[in-house]
Amino acid sequence: MGAFLFNYLRHMTTTINTQDLFAKSVLLSWDHAVGQATAFFDKCTDEELLQQIAPGKNRLIYLLGHLAAVHDRMLPLLDLGDRLYPHLDENFVSTPDNPAATLPSTQELRKAWTAVNERLSGLLRHWTPEEWLQRHTAVSEEDFAKEPHRNRLSVVLSRTRHISYHLGQLVLYK
Amino acid sequence: MGAFLFNYLRHMTTTINTQDLFAKSVLLSWDHAVGQATAFFDKCTDEELLQQIAPGKNRLIYLLGHLAAVHDRMLPLLDLGDRLYPHLDENFVSTPDNPAATLPSTQELRKAWTAVNERLSGLLRHWTPEEWLQRHTAVSEEDFAKEPHRNRLSVVLSRTRHISYHLGQLVLYK
Repeated sequence: MGAFLFNYLRHMTTTINTQDLFAKSVLLSWDHAVGQATAFFDKCTDEELLQQIAPGKNRLIYLLGHLAAVHDRMLPLLDLGDRLYPHLDENFVSTPDNPAATLPSTQELRKAWTAVNERLSGLLRHWTPEEWLQRHTAVSEEDFAKEPHRNRLSVVLSRTRHISYHLGQLVLYK
Repeated sequence: MGAFLFNYLRHMTTTINTQDLFAKSVLLSWDHAVGQATAFFDKCTDEELLQQIAPGKNRLIYLLGHLAAVHDRMLPLLDLGDRLYPHLDENFVSTPDNPAATLPSTQELRKAWTAVNERLSGLLRHWTPEEWLQRHTAVSEEDFAKEPHRNRLSVVLSRTRHISYHLGQLVLYK
């Protein structure tokens, strides 16, 4: 029993470290992408935000609002509570960039971007490995039983790619 | 002992599933990004590859060669053997896009992109959770002991973001 218990504890320590490192690495990747986008927006003036990333393409302000809205939508998707800024969808998710539309101010959008990421990151970093692998709310319990990879981890990985996708476009401006 | 063994086995089954799901989700994210980029390049004609993604910006062919070279560099970085196409660095990593340079043919670049991703994906999908968390070869054993998140998983997450970053730029062309 002694040797068994020793090996059990040693093995459990390894597996717990393994799980924690997986979760930590995914969180670092998310933080890195959010940090890169934040640094980009922070160095843009309000006037620059109104410019297009390239001729005939989205304006920077649209991508700021779009990213803030998509991250805000992650709160209910990850079962982390209600959205903070549901009104952003109208201008930044449901419709393409429209220079004739009346948008929220750049100040409001910068604030929303910061607030929603602080909320998300504050909650994600306390998840246990099992909580990372819980189903997201857009998949039914029945489907999730058959497809356990449709979990909250996959949402965070997908949204991390989404930040990088738009960051690649944003940097074309500068 | 019976109850202990039962709980141990149940716990081990859960932790093994947890580790496997983490690895599987990261692999799905990588596969997804590679698949999106491949689909994009596949629908581009050779003539289109010679165009710029936006006025004054990189040509599509440069991003194809750049992504192929960066993925090729992952082979030694992940301790998966020698590179297949080290000569790509000269035109696609060490220097910016140069329309005056003599580049490999689009056919050769398409083939390199496919071959290196097949090699990588074929090897990654057989890693155990512990193999994902091994150090990458650009970090010393000493530093890795202090910073265990500098592992192969973090390289794959970083390169997945890198694909999405350039994919966001590529789609501006079409």
